[in-house]
Amino acid sequence: MLLRLSSLFVRTLREDPVDAEVASHKLLVRAGYIRRAAPGIYTWLPLGLRVLAKVEGVVREEMVAAGAQEVHFPALLPKEPYEATGRWTEYGPNIFRLKDRKGGDYLLAPTHEEMFTLLVKDLYSSYKDLPLTLFQIQTKYRDEARPRAGLIRGREFIMKDAYTFDLDDDGLAASYQAQRDAYVRIFDRLGLEHVIVAATSGAMGGSRSEEFLTPTAIGEDTFVRSPGGYAANVEAVTTVVPPSLPWDDAPAPHVEDTPDTPTIDSLVALANDRFPRPDRAWTAADTLKNVVFALVHPGGERELLVVGLPGDRDVDAKRLEASVAPAEVEAAGDADFAAHPELVRGYIGPAVMGPNAPAGPDGERTAVRYLLDPRVVPGTRWITGANEAGRHVFDLVAGRDFTADGTIEAAEVRAGDPAPDGSGPLELARGIEIGHIFALGRKYAQALGLTVLDQNGKAQVVTMGSYGIGVSRVLAALAEANHDERGLAWPAAVAPAHVHVVATGKDQAVFEAAEALAGTLAARGVEVLYDDRPKVSPGVKFADAELLGVPLVVVVGRGLADGVVEVRPRVGGEARQVPVATAADVVAELVDGLLAD
Amino acid sequence: MLLRLSSLFVRTLREDPVDAEVASHKLLVRAGYIRRAAPGIYTWLPLGLRVLAKVEGVVREEMVAAGAQEVHFPALLPKEPYEATGRWTEYGPNIFRLKDRKGGDYLLAPTHEEMFTLLVKDLYSSYKDLPLTLFQIQTKYRDEARPRAGLIRGREFIMKDAYTFDLDDDGLAASYQAQRDAYVRIFDRLGLEHVIVAATSGAMGGSRSEEFLTPTAIGEDTFVRSPGGYAANVEAVTTVVPPSLPWDDAPAPHVEDTPDTPTIDSLVALANDRFPRPDRAWTAADTLKNVVFALVHPGGERELLVVGLPGDRDVDAKRLEASVAPAEVEAAGDADFAAHPELVRGYIGPAVMGPNAPAGPDGERTAVRYLLDPRVVPGTRWITGANEAGRHVFDLVAGRDFTADGTIEAAEVRAGDPAPDGSGPLELARGIEIGHIFALGRKYAQALGLTVLDQNGKAQVVTMGSYGIGVSRVLAALAEANHDERGLAWPAAVAPAHVHVVATGKDQAVFEAAEALAGTLAARGVEVLYDDRPKVSPGVKFADAELLGVPLVVVVGRGLADGVVEVRPRVGGEARQVPVATAADVVAELVDGLLAD
Repeated sequence: MLLRLSSLFVRTLREDPVDAEVASHKLLVRAGYIRRAAPGIYTWLPLGLRVLAKVEGVVREEMVAAGAQEVHFPALLPKEPYEATGRWTEYGPNIFRLKDRKGGDYLLAPTHEEMFTLLVKDLYSSYKDLPLTLFQIQTKYRDEARPRAGLIRGREFIMKDAYTFDLDDDGLAASYQAQRDAYVRIFDRLGLEHVIVAATSGAMGGSRSEEFLTPTAIGEDTFVRSPGGYAANVEAVTTVVPPSLPWDDAPAPHVEDTPDTPTIDSLVALANDRFPRPDRAWTAADTLKNVVFALVHPGGERELLVVGLPGDRDVDAKRLEASVAPAEVEAAGDADFAAHPELVRGYIGPAVMGPNAPAGPDGERTAVRYLLDPRVVPGTRWITGANEAGRHVFDLVAGRDFTADGTIEAAEVRAGDPAPDGSGPLELARGIEIGHIFALGRKYAQALGLTVLDQNGKAQVVTMGSYGIGVSRVLAALAEANHDERGLAWPAAVAPAHVHVVATGKDQAVFEAAEALAGTLAARGVEVLYDDRPKVSPGVKFADAELLGVPLVVVVGRGLADGVVEVRPRVGGEARQVPVATAADVVAELVDGLLAD
Repeated sequence: MLLRLSSLFVRTLREDPVDAEVASHKLLVRAGYIRRAAPGIYTWLPLGLRVLAKVEGVVREEMVAAGAQEVHFPALLPKEPYEATGRWTEYGPNIFRLKDRKGGDYLLAPTHEEMFTLLVKDLYSSYKDLPLTLFQIQTKYRDEARPRAGLIRGREFIMKDAYTFDLDDDGLAASYQAQRDAYVRIFDRLGLEHVIVAATSGAMGGSRSEEFLTPTAIGEDTFVRSPGGYAANVEAVTTVVPPSLPWDDAPAPHVEDTPDTPTIDSLVALANDRFPRPDRAWTAADTLKNVVFALVHPGGERELLVVGLPGDRDVDAKRLEASVAPAEVEAAGDADFAAHPELVRGYIGPAVMGPNAPAGPDGERTAVRYLLDPRVVPGTRWITGANEAGRHVFDLVAGRDFTADGTIEAAEVRAGDPAPDGSGPLELARGIEIGHIFALGRKYAQALGLTVLDQNGKAQVVTMGSYGIGVSRVLAALAEANHDERGLAWPAAVAPAHVHVVATGKDQAVFEAAEALAGTLAARGVEVLYDDRPKVSPGVKFADAELLGVPLVVVVGRGLADGVVEVRPRVGGEARQVPVATAADVVAELVDGLLAD
């Protein structure tokens, strides 16, 4: 393969696109790999498409090696199967919906569990047909509220989605493991660092799920790890619940005037000033903060929810969202507070919420739902709102003086928090989700009637798994992991070409030698990008070579007079002067080495 | 490659799907290549996907060989570019439209002229950048009123669309020719018979367009050919206009009672009975039939149109549609006639329409639009309606007694009609449109502002071409052209496998020998489908082999005791007994021969 820059459909840009925040997005646009067509929707230019095809190729090979068979579903699908599983509603505004000319409801599929289930139901009927693994590499759609970071969170994107079908739980476990192993091989081959973490299942449902994250500071996901090997997305971390405490010696609750203390900090300062504690100073951890949210359920109903948590912790929006899904979370607004005058902003206390709320005039409860952080165990003592402006209650004891409607995992996870499995203190890091695997169990098969006859001729509901890789996102993650301030620096396995030959100067002999070298390399199967542009300065050509990120750069220029060309890796290596006579051999060998890495 | 039927995700069906009318649709479903997901929307199963990939591969290779560079656009696109060219409206109900969560208007693109134009505008600015040819192979959408024939007229389908960009008309002509030549090579390589015919441009616009049709009785398109080499889609045929006639000797028009003559046949019979013509009998060709249609314009406005044509010809719905596009045609209904009482069903005559219509009471004309077949030249004499039930007018002379708002190409083309270029009488045939190429000219570049600076530094509007191949439709056309009553019979170049090895009987030695042969062939690069299913009868296996349509069938069975296997082509050849020891060599050589064809 020989691509000439003089005719290749690419233009490099010196300026970052205005809407780009992360390096992969900036560089993929600047280097002419992708172009924005609409928010979260991108066009692939020739170089980008070449990288994409190589990433797809690795994914496809490992899927086939793992025994998966490739199929291809439509993106445009009728509503009915998604209604049968409830996801038509659960996805809320996150899916693109449309009507056809006859008024039929359709969607642009974000994932295909329903269709795969129905297809297997259509074709298979016996336990002998199982296990079965199918996959596709296909364009998917999500109407993201906030598309961002270029390909990392898009609205039209490319996914590999695989689905396994088994008769029993052991079969599912084996199929799940086979996909998990294939994922490790895929990311290893792509040279993409990855961490496997426990995850929540969200709208997908199912019994077990894990995410593959690639660590990066610009990642949207936060995950935790412990010295003992625990790893989870923060959304999946469960709080270690401390033991309950006796309250026999606890003083009775007492309401105090605490003027002008709408914040935790001001409350703690005032408490230490006016109501000092004998043994130690009050801290934010002694206060019980009650935060009001509005949940919007998939059907559109709005419900208030108050989360009570120690004042030294904030609510983690993503953990809260994961806990209340498929409902969406909004900030409570003036109208919400107006509808619930018992919630006095800045001074909200348990007495007016959940089971503690007094019955209404007609004996009917319309209390706001109240959920507690799991650390608020019986016997813990709190300073919290007295439901009057400027007043707080002290020594309010959980279990004795108040209860709640339940607990919720919504408080932030902090470095040093204990791992739920006792494997030590957690550390936090950020990453991009590049894969997600789900042991779905029987949810979809049950909803859509996928059964097979077992050895005894009895119908058994099939158990399933689903396994996704964000192929276009993986490309962005690779760009994110392989760049420097000068541009992209692709691993050879996915680079749009192996060698970037640059002819510099105006000397016709240079261009002839470069053309000959490029041709020789191409004839040997090396993929060559050849900068044959006349009247473009060496500086511009070198800058473009560094921006485009082909792993090996060969400069044919002034050295030609001395019979040498310069061979230099895009990153991490020294430039070498190589006799022009042996240049093709040397370069081909270097390429083989890079591809074997 | 070695696919084992025992685990391959395929089920053959003995019964035709109820919604299938054409052989390719029936067989592709029965053989387990595709499955219907919704009307006009199909899922690709493993065997279908393999054929599709091969067709795509041929198309891609020839595009690249013709100098086209591959890109990939989104399917989900914002309205604005399509509004700028008018196509957002012109496509009417034929495109899928949707809104995103913010209320923005989007469409699922049926074709991408606008986006390619904008992309080139984004990247290029100089005449030195041209000529340029880009292409993509991509999923496209049309909300067809009547999806039919499986993949032949679907609502989600796969297209190769290419676009050329040139500075001047000569450049466009050369680019057009290069794509045209590539199309010929593609269809030649696929072994698909094709005819290139002149075509109308429809909503696409442009100065010249040709269709590639593959002849088949089930085709939706009718095309014509003349002995002298004229070829056109019937929609593009222009009528040979006879010379005008003198009317000096023509009798004056006279109205006659013609009771109970609502049809042409009844009118001709009555005319011959009561008003015989001295020189010869009246025929239907002496009558002027006026047919009422309702046009629905893209904006939704409804307009009546009357087409006047010789009574021996019918209106060809597709020719009419092509002539009035982007308006759609509907039958005129009771409400339409009620709104125009001057149109007396069965007895409509020119006097009440178009320029002949009397002015209204207030002097204002609200006449129904009236267009004539081009054969109705000045001086021709007609029997036609007198605009009263039971009465017709005789000797009504065009040009003397009536005129019209213009002419229209809407009458059927008949075998024997003269070719418009004088190359002889036309013959008619049917075909499937497999490709369509358009010299667009400057329509899109003008609307979207794509200019480049020429040698003199002056901005020039770029001239464009667009070139489509219905890739999924080509697959169906190949199935249509390559089948018999027993099943599919793929050309080797696109077959899902080269060889179908069938192991028959229960003898373990047979299965071992078949497995060994399949393995040996696969190791040599032959693509093998191996029917290793135990407990399936030879009859079922042979029927499946014929249904699936792999070009070469190798039977390992009873003959093995005598040291031979049977090798037989799926079609058009004799079965041979081949010694098992040399079977791999013989088969590999046969495969090479088939692929070289």
